[in-house]
Amino acid sequence: MYELGVVYRKVERAEQRLADELGAFGSATVHEATGRVGMFQPYLRPIYAGARVSGTAVTVLLQPGDNWMLHVVAEQIRPGDIVVAAVTSACTDGFFGDLLATSFKARGARALVIDGGCRDVKTLTDLEFPVWSRAISIRGTVKATLGSVNVPVVCAGALVHPGDVVVADDDGVVCVPRTRAAVTLDRANEREANEREKRARLASGVLGLDMYQMREPLAKAGLRYIDG
Amino acid sequence: MYELGVVYRKVERAEQRLADELGAFGSATVHEATGRVGMFQPYLRPIYAGARVSGTAVTVLLQPGDNWMLHVVAEQIRPGDIVVAAVTSACTDGFFGDLLATSFKARGARALVIDGGCRDVKTLTDLEFPVWSRAISIRGTVKATLGSVNVPVVCAGALVHPGDVVVADDDGVVCVPRTRAAVTLDRANEREANEREKRARLASGVLGLDMYQMREPLAKAGLRYIDG
Amino acid sequence: MYELGVVYRKVERAEQRLADELGAFGSATVHEATGRVGMFQPYLRPIYAGARVSGTAVTVLLQPGDNWMLHVVAEQIRPGDIVVAAVTSACTDGFFGDLLATSFKARGARALVIDGGCRDVKTLTDLEFPVWSRAISIRGTVKATLGSVNVPVVCAGALVHPGDVVVADDDGVVCVPRTRAAVTLDRANEREANEREKRARLASGVLGLDMYQMREPLAKAGLRYIDG
Amino acid sequence: MYELGVVYRKVERAEQRLADELGAFGSATVHEATGRVGMFQPYLRPIYAGARVSGTAVTVLLQPGDNWMLHVVAEQIRPGDIVVAAVTSACTDGFFGDLLATSFKARGARALVIDGGCRDVKTLTDLEFPVWSRAISIRGTVKATLGSVNVPVVCAGALVHPGDVVVADDDGVVCVPRTRAAVTLDRANEREANEREKRARLASGVLGLDMYQMREPLAKAGLRYIDG
Amino acid sequence: MYELGVVYRKVERAEQRLADELGAFGSATVHEATGRVGMFQPYLRPIYAGARVSGTAVTVLLQPGDNWMLHVVAEQIRPGDIVVAAVTSACTDGFFGDLLATSFKARGARALVIDGGCRDVKTLTDLEFPVWSRAISIRGTVKATLGSVNVPVVCAGALVHPGDVVVADDDGVVCVPRTRAAVTLDRANEREANEREKRARLASGVLGLDMYQMREPLAKAGLRYIDG
Amino acid sequence: MYELGVVYRKVERAEQRLADELGAFGSATVHEATGRVGMFQPYLRPIYAGARVSGTAVTVLLQPGDNWMLHVVAEQIRPGDIVVAAVTSACTDGFFGDLLATSFKARGARALVIDGGCRDVKTLTDLEFPVWSRAISIRGTVKATLGSVNVPVVCAGALVHPGDVVVADDDGVVCVPRTRAAVTLDRANEREANEREKRARLASGVLGLDMYQMREPLAKAGLRYIDG
Repeated sequence: MYELGVVYRKVERAEQRLADELGAFGSATVHEATGRVGMFQPYLRPIYAGARVSGTAVTVLLQPGDNWMLHVVAEQIRPGDIVVAAVTSACTDGFFGDLLATSFKARGARALVIDGGCRDVKTLTDLEFPVWSRAISIRGTVKATLGSVNVPVVCAGALVHPGDVVVADDDGVVCVPRTRAAVTLDRANEREANEREKRARLASGVLGLDMYQMREPLAKAGLRYIDG
Repeated sequence: MYELGVVYRKVERAEQRLADELGAFGSATVHEATGRVGMFQPYLRPIYAGARVSGTAVTVLLQPGDNWMLHVVAEQIRPGDIVVAAVTSACTDGFFGDLLATSFKARGARALVIDGGCRDVKTLTDLEFPVWSRAISIRGTVKATLGSVNVPVVCAGALVHPGDVVVADDDGVVCVPRTRAAVTLDRANEREANEREKRARLASGVLGLDMYQMREPLAKAGLRYIDG
Repeated sequence: MYELGVVYRKVERAEQRLADELGAFGSATVHEATGRVGMFQPYLRPIYAGARVSGTAVTVLLQPGDNWMLHVVAEQIRPGDIVVAAVTSACTDGFFGDLLATSFKARGARALVIDGGCRDVKTLTDLEFPVWSRAISIRGTVKATLGSVNVPVVCAGALVHPGDVVVADDDGVVCVPRTRAAVTLDRANEREANEREKRARLASGVLGLDMYQMREPLAKAGLRYIDG
Repeated sequence: MYELGVVYRKVERAEQRLADELGAFGSATVHEATGRVGMFQPYLRPIYAGARVSGTAVTVLLQPGDNWMLHVVAEQIRPGDIVVAAVTSACTDGFFGDLLATSFKARGARALVIDGGCRDVKTLTDLEFPVWSRAISIRGTVKATLGSVNVPVVCAGALVHPGDVVVADDDGVVCVPRTRAAVTLDRANEREANEREKRARLASGVLGLDMYQMREPLAKAGLRYIDG
Repeated sequence: MYELGVVYRKVERAEQRLADELGAFGSATVHEATGRVGMFQPYLRPIYAGARVSGTAVTVLLQPGDNWMLHVVAEQIRPGDIVVAAVTSACTDGFFGDLLATSFKARGARALVIDGGCRDVKTLTDLEFPVWSRAISIRGTVKATLGSVNVPVVCAGALVHPGDVVVADDDGVVCVPRTRAAVTLDRANEREANEREKRARLASGVLGLDMYQMREPLAKAGLRYIDG
Repeated sequence: MYELGVVYRKVERAEQRLADELGAFGSATVHEATGRVGMFQPYLRPIYAGARVSGTAVTVLLQPGDNWMLHVVAEQIRPGDIVVAAVTSACTDGFFGDLLATSFKARGARALVIDGGCRDVKTLTDLEFPVWSRAISIRGTVKATLGSVNVPVVCAGALVHPGDVVVADDDGVVCVPRTRAAVTLDRANEREANEREKRARLASGVLGLDMYQMREPLAKAGLRYIDG
């Protein structure tokens, strides 16, 4: 799938409005709304708690221990983008720190999602530039080998095309294909409306067993209650 | 050990007072007081820092990727309980989120300890409903296969019987068998009294080497000091 | 390399001033300034966010599940030291808790870096005694088998000699050999001066591509831009 | 659950005939016949391929890095037993090697299942003494701290009582409670008879879709076939 | 990317001849010939040593702990295919055993590559039906939830489209996109020709330093030789 | 500790005779004879079973994803050496394959111990060139960044100096410092003589409890036998 040594300058991005509205639901609801696809593996964790972002993906494919292409991708960032960085082989090095964050931020990036390590987390936290990474590591990287920018990438198990919507928060990260953003937003709205009412009933002490009418299917499946 | 497809309605719970008093000591002291048994493996981590809870266990055995039985166990919760959820096979999916937390809380549960994943951690934090889990994951679960409720379970390596006392905090989670709760509490009290005085002496600069009279046994074991 | 059953009382420590000044740069900058050597593997994590410390190493080699030597090393601590604890075999047990922290603190230690587990993290946080560890575990340890104090140790993959400088913060932990502390400090100063100016330019929107003059080497390496 | 410092001499063992006959089915079939309970986590692996054993459990609880109790359990072994060794905390050390294997074999043990490491694997292979372990490690252990013998243990996530049947082969390890051995054997026989015929049909090219009549439930669940 | 609940019946397969000839080179050479893309993460391991296969991919997306779709994919297998099974969430359960292997073999499949567990490895070895899996586990799966067949999948980090070429052996697994199979084969042929001659020179004692003319670039990069 | 960009040409090697004789004991016995130090972490595994080698270490420090220095170290190999390769950051890439093995073999190397990945394992097995590695991976490496040769390295947690003795077999890998080789050999001889007799006694049914006179210390430690 990957091509190495290429930079695609032209990215058809999902509408920013869709990305923004999807972000308001949070990653777990959006993942449900996609039909439970597009999850980044849960080993990616935010470097600080409480951030919630969404945006359009610009993608970059890195070589292990080499962050050269992060400088190349910086030029392709537009305001509202989230950089999604895959690595051709598992690596925890600190590909990203305060200088690149300063640059990404200046270009309008909202966040970085990287299947590698990052560093300078205190500074990034102060800058309020959120990063979801697989590790925090002081080890820097070299600039010696080409990767690619704005090719489809597999990042933490998720396939991401440039221009897709990415939503990230304390629960994790999810990708919504550009062409599915509108329909996913509709479903997220439906789901949320639905859940609001359920939450109120559950809070009042109603059981899910009754609210979801599970007693009959449970009995049918053979569930037995024992009182001894 | 496990039985599948059964719900035991009757649980002989440890006295709530014992659970409460044990909780005041924290998990590490209680683990010492049990004679160093009953530890949940340390890969279980709290979803937010600072929570300390104790309670009586209601147990549930889940299938991987399936949270049906969490709705079944909800009905068996009594105020003061902690739900302990085992999974028949390693799984990081988000079995538990804000709706179930709302329900568990309404039933009087104090916490969830789950050998699987959870999600909606920001909402759970706001609700002050603490969870100790092996992962945080946006991925939801199905409701298709039976497990059991209030059978003995192995959760993160710890054997838990319904009605046992569970203590959980930033350090981890420990289970005290119901029939050992009183004696464990006595020992925790002794230990704590003992430690208070030690802490003061150590703070004043006394060495553990002297306070615990270790110099002789160390020498006997062959320890050599070299001044060169 | 290791010798078991010995305590070296005499440690030639790096100058405290060098340790202090290195600490001000943080672990990532110091790691760069060493030429990217001396990293502790990133699985060591701080028990609470925001701590930054530096100091001179006193080292201790522990046996798995046994913290006897932590009492022995306490006597060798001088104000400004950081205790670096290696374990002869991977172990997540809670070797260190509030009593030892009280003692270490009374002796003037600034922190503990341990390739094992620790506990009582809430108390340690309240005490502001930072620990970098591989796990948090309620499980205590025995005092039965000898290790060593102030021998060279390998801790989380880093070789540490007694008296070396250790710098630790949210990004991780790095060791600077005693004899390299001064030159490393010089390099850290140069690097930092250099980065300050770069940061300002990047913040103004200048690209790393231009600032570092990467366009030519990238083209030479074969990077192609595609506009379709 | 655990008691430390005790040796139960009297074990009510499952009938040897049941253990032998269950062993003939292999671990996967027996696991199905138990209703899918009693699995040891799959991180336990045999030290050599091709061994298949079954027997009655004698259990031992070890401390990390300490194999003292393996000598104690040796005396409790009877011909036809399998030693099941749990460890109170995760440890990969080599608790077991050629000397203990010689002793266990002389006592009539058929195998060791250990939630820790072993060593001398070439010699154990030559002796045809199979071991399922979580690691192979040259690191030996001390003899300093008590555990227990013939108490219920949790080994690699499986609860094992002394006298239970253990079946182990290339696929893994399963425990059958003593009181369930006979009924599990009946079910294994049924299953096997059932599968023999199925295997022949599948080998002839019949599809599981048809043989198990899955087409209708799949359609009902919403499966769509697309020919474009 | 994924669609759930669909089966694509029509797959445009790479030419069988290309798959066969690529297979002869082995996975490492083919991975080089692709330009180092298409690797399955190395945690996938063969269940027995010595197998080398290649074929055209039919893909299946499974739910954790659920192998229903393996029966659905069986019908889509044509002689020369390799089944590539992704799972929507990390799971080590034994999705695949001797019955399915019998069926797959009867349909002409050459192998299974699965990002989950398998079982009955002794029987599969006897059948000479190779499997690359992330685990071996006795735990069976249910048949309750839909996945998909012949959609693009991410398996162990590799993106695979139906009809792509898959090559697998002791070194690992690689995917070659259908449209790149011919050019990759050419490159593999070139590479192999090139290496044959190199191997002979190296065997005669010529150094890579000289054969690849590395001395100058190494010196330029600053390598220093020290004779003290 | 590390220096980057240097090659030490002069290595004071342990006597070959000592390396050879130590090798005859195997890694576990040698590890005991060193006093239980010098172990490489057990995640290093041999690529095929049955190899046992010993030799004098030449060391190399690699960068992640970069095997340039393996060509540099080749020139420093003398007959009887074992190459010990550390990596500055965790990496599973295939740094080493059949071409380098051909070259190393031609230079007289007996084995490679690498804290990274290797590939072409079938060819290496046919060549009878054993490798202990942390992974098997088809992914090749670049030649872009300097490391060092014949500096002290930390490989899989073990500190190795050039010229030290390395012993490796199915149980793992151990390093004996050059200056300790002779005394370690003496201790290994003693240990082995000692064990031979013990093995015979254990085989005859004598218990370790009696042979090692453990009954009294066990009773003293509080072990209780229960006959109910």
